[in-house]
Amino acid sequence: MTPKREMRTDIGWSDASRITVFGHDFPSEILGRLNLGDMGFLELTGRIPNANESRMFNAMVVTLVEHGITPSALAARLTYLGAPESMQAAVAAGLCGLGSVFVGSIEGCAKMLYDAMPVGTTSDLAEIARDTVQRFRKEKKTIPGIGHPLHKPVDPRTPRLFAIADETGFSGPYVQLVNLVASEAEKLSGRLLPVNATGAIGALCCEMGFDWQICRGLGVMARAVGLVGHLLEESRRPMASQVWHMVEEEATAHFHSDSRAKAD
Amino acid sequence: MTPKREMRTDIGWSDASRITVFGHDFPSEILGRLNLGDMGFLELTGRIPNANESRMFNAMVVTLVEHGITPSALAARLTYLGAPESMQAAVAAGLCGLGSVFVGSIEGCAKMLYDAMPVGTTSDLAEIARDTVQRFRKEKKTIPGIGHPLHKPVDPRTPRLFAIADETGFSGPYVQLVNLVASEAEKLSGRLLPVNATGAIGALCCEMGFDWQICRGLGVMARAVGLVGHLLEESRRPMASQVWHMVEEEATAHFHSDSRAKAD
Amino acid sequence: MTPKREMRTDIGWSDASRITVFGHDFPSEILGRLNLGDMGFLELTGRIPNANESRMFNAMVVTLVEHGITPSALAARLTYLGAPESMQAAVAAGLCGLGSVFVGSIEGCAKMLYDAMPVGTTSDLAEIARDTVQRFRKEKKTIPGIGHPLHKPVDPRTPRLFAIADETGFSGPYVQLVNLVASEAEKLSGRLLPVNATGAIGALCCEMGFDWQICRGLGVMARAVGLVGHLLEESRRPMASQVWHMVEEEATAHFHSDSRAKAD
Amino acid sequence: MTPKREMRTDIGWSDASRITVFGHDFPSEILGRLNLGDMGFLELTGRIPNANESRMFNAMVVTLVEHGITPSALAARLTYLGAPESMQAAVAAGLCGLGSVFVGSIEGCAKMLYDAMPVGTTSDLAEIARDTVQRFRKEKKTIPGIGHPLHKPVDPRTPRLFAIADETGFSGPYVQLVNLVASEAEKLSGRLLPVNATGAIGALCCEMGFDWQICRGLGVMARAVGLVGHLLEESRRPMASQVWHMVEEEATAHFHSDSRAKAD
Repeated sequence: MTPKREMRTDIGWSDASRITVFGHDFPSEILGRLNLGDMGFLELTGRIPNANESRMFNAMVVTLVEHGITPSALAARLTYLGAPESMQAAVAAGLCGLGSVFVGSIEGCAKMLYDAMPVGTTSDLAEIARDTVQRFRKEKKTIPGIGHPLHKPVDPRTPRLFAIADETGFSGPYVQLVNLVASEAEKLSGRLLPVNATGAIGALCCEMGFDWQICRGLGVMARAVGLVGHLLEESRRPMASQVWHMVEEEATAHFHSDSRAKAD
Repeated sequence: MTPKREMRTDIGWSDASRITVFGHDFPSEILGRLNLGDMGFLELTGRIPNANESRMFNAMVVTLVEHGITPSALAARLTYLGAPESMQAAVAAGLCGLGSVFVGSIEGCAKMLYDAMPVGTTSDLAEIARDTVQRFRKEKKTIPGIGHPLHKPVDPRTPRLFAIADETGFSGPYVQLVNLVASEAEKLSGRLLPVNATGAIGALCCEMGFDWQICRGLGVMARAVGLVGHLLEESRRPMASQVWHMVEEEATAHFHSDSRAKAD
Repeated sequence: MTPKREMRTDIGWSDASRITVFGHDFPSEILGRLNLGDMGFLELTGRIPNANESRMFNAMVVTLVEHGITPSALAARLTYLGAPESMQAAVAAGLCGLGSVFVGSIEGCAKMLYDAMPVGTTSDLAEIARDTVQRFRKEKKTIPGIGHPLHKPVDPRTPRLFAIADETGFSGPYVQLVNLVASEAEKLSGRLLPVNATGAIGALCCEMGFDWQICRGLGVMARAVGLVGHLLEESRRPMASQVWHMVEEEATAHFHSDSRAKAD
Repeated sequence: MTPKREMRTDIGWSDASRITVFGHDFPSEILGRLNLGDMGFLELTGRIPNANESRMFNAMVVTLVEHGITPSALAARLTYLGAPESMQAAVAAGLCGLGSVFVGSIEGCAKMLYDAMPVGTTSDLAEIARDTVQRFRKEKKTIPGIGHPLHKPVDPRTPRLFAIADETGFSGPYVQLVNLVASEAEKLSGRLLPVNATGAIGALCCEMGFDWQICRGLGVMARAVGLVGHLLEESRRPMASQVWHMVEEEATAHFHSDSRAKAD
């Protein structure tokens, strides 16, 4: 009486002599032909990228690999301090924080752009940009993908990403739109609000036709690569233990001074 | 009186207009020039790979991206079922299981090969292989990186990886040694024990000079890419809920039959 | 020029001979006097519970410890299969899925109740319940904390939790309100929609005055306890490997039949 | 031809009106009767603790809930900074580091004691202690469960835990043995090496008959409770962002001074 269950994957399968991934013979058609970014593209689209897609997609994920000492890198290093035998768990800890605040702005920007201009529609981009900025201002929400605490007046990754988009044929209406949104927001707010790297990548995700829900995945793939590098550095030149002791000392200083005061 | 703390990273830094990663200007020297696998190589070595290194390293990590419905992919999908708003946490859950049993054999194989033949030594490879196999047999330990439950008599990825190693100049003594270890183990055990994909990658990690402690990192980087693909498929064609209900029903069937028996 | 940083914790501190937690001498005032649930109450309120608070809070978290073979328990078991040396990472994997779909309904229900009746206000509860149900119906949203796929017409945990609330003095307006919401929803929908365990706990969180944002934490604390039990069972009577092979076989069955068809 | 798969759990099951956990009717026999620590005992032993077991086990886990600003608490707080919508993932990140270095010493100590004196054997405890200490010194390994960087000459939790063990009947040969091991190690090394809290708990785990492999689980259960408290404090009085900026500034200071030097 149990209803029929269907469990099905179309990603891959294997038998004694063959391994097939997204319909391709893995050893002969993928291995040695695709790079790691191409595999990411294959996972997200089910097909092997052409040369332009490969160059653009790799640039997008490469942008997200390494952002130096981030909260995510620190969480991974502090985890490694306690469990050096489980490097995979330290990377996992670092990934857990790639949520709404940092990497999430990629998907926020892609969603904003798709909402403003659904795939297949054409419109007056300047008008859409004005409407979008006004909507966010009215709802008192931060516009995702523009502005940067450090990189001003330009996030240096953005012009480079958009130049690669020009060269590879991905500089379309969503790229135009995100630029117009930033200009409009700068005009209305009087602040420097450049399209930042996650905004550029959000727009390029739209150009590539990715679901906005999966855009965060580009950051997750990429950061896993960078976190392994941080753990290698941590294994050779540790900082986690110093971070811990320094923070503990500062954060409990008021107790110790209270304690001394009482003892006096 | 607090001892001097030193916290230092050599990975990267930025200011308002510049972003530097491993000494390279990120926008002009890395973005659009390196692919995602090259970034992994940069993270592990601190330098940009040449063409041969790029091809070999990308092949190694590409091998580890997608192994279909693994325990890791299932853990990620089951996590996504409960927290679809936190895709990063579902990938993290999937990575947590890349421990000693599966991906860990890369580092196990690399360590075995380095222990048997430290970097810079030369010796009679056949003798080293015999000694190594005998040592593992005596200690009743499984030799890491050889044998496969499904792929027999050959793991189809291994000859392809070793062919790429020939083409790129990475087919050295550690590749020879792992092949000799497998042959010796087959001879003594009478079983089919081909060098498997993690064994091939372990040997190639030695050829590239990576610390054995970091070898697991190749699997972690790679699998993060594959897990995003599984979550995209899960979002479109879910199986986690069916897996859950099916397992729950089977695993508690004895309770329900006891319960019916008591009611009779 | 750097702005003054302040890092401060009020949770605890120690020196060579003393350990203080939330202002209490840990060895003499907490150890041997508080149980594990009381520690949870102390963490959430900063004070030691009285007898009624202890009984109620322990009942709330105990309810969330063990729900059998859940997606969370399966994710933990599948992770343990690959990394048995990292039990902590298997529990972490299991916790990652306690998001919006399952445990999140505790906070959803608490937020709904607080939104409908802010702390310190009094109103006509029946009217608030009607308004709340109508608002959710209008927005086509599921009302959190009512209805259960299996437990009908009553979730057997709910009357017990509310009986303990009566005995301990926690049966106040939020408990009344959640019951009225469920009745109203049943009346309008014509379906059985009992207050479920997470709904009861959400209402009791309001009675206790917890921030709705922290309510998910009760589920996280509790489930960590249960997941350790699942991993102990998995270590003695494993099921993860069977789950994996069974799912893999079913999910790739279409490939194998295609493959056979081609071979014919 | 597929071998018969068996998936079975003995933990619990439910139907429309009943929920059974370890053979007990959950609503009537567990809810309102057991505290959270008792649930942990039930998960680890399959039976409800008596009053002495309840008191002892709760004391053991309560000891492990809150250790202030640990690397684990920092990892959780840094994760929460990026993904405040996923508190469960922040707790998971914090748990990932409970590995060999910190909480792992509980299982290390329990294993040492079981290895030295298997369950059911009786021997000259002083001789066993001497042999054990000599074996660790010969292998140049740290003896797990003794010594503490801060708490000297006594870890204030240990005498309290052992006093509760006296009161509850759990002060047996493993407690004696760990004390003798510490004395012997102090004598031979000339250093202060008190039995620390994890050593005391390791010995008490042996008195309770737990598998050494599961001892880490007590720390995992307990710390999940404490981490929720840290995240609540982080939500009200954040420190993660300051930690991040402070560490980033210090760790990249050499770049900035190099950069200024070049610009001069």
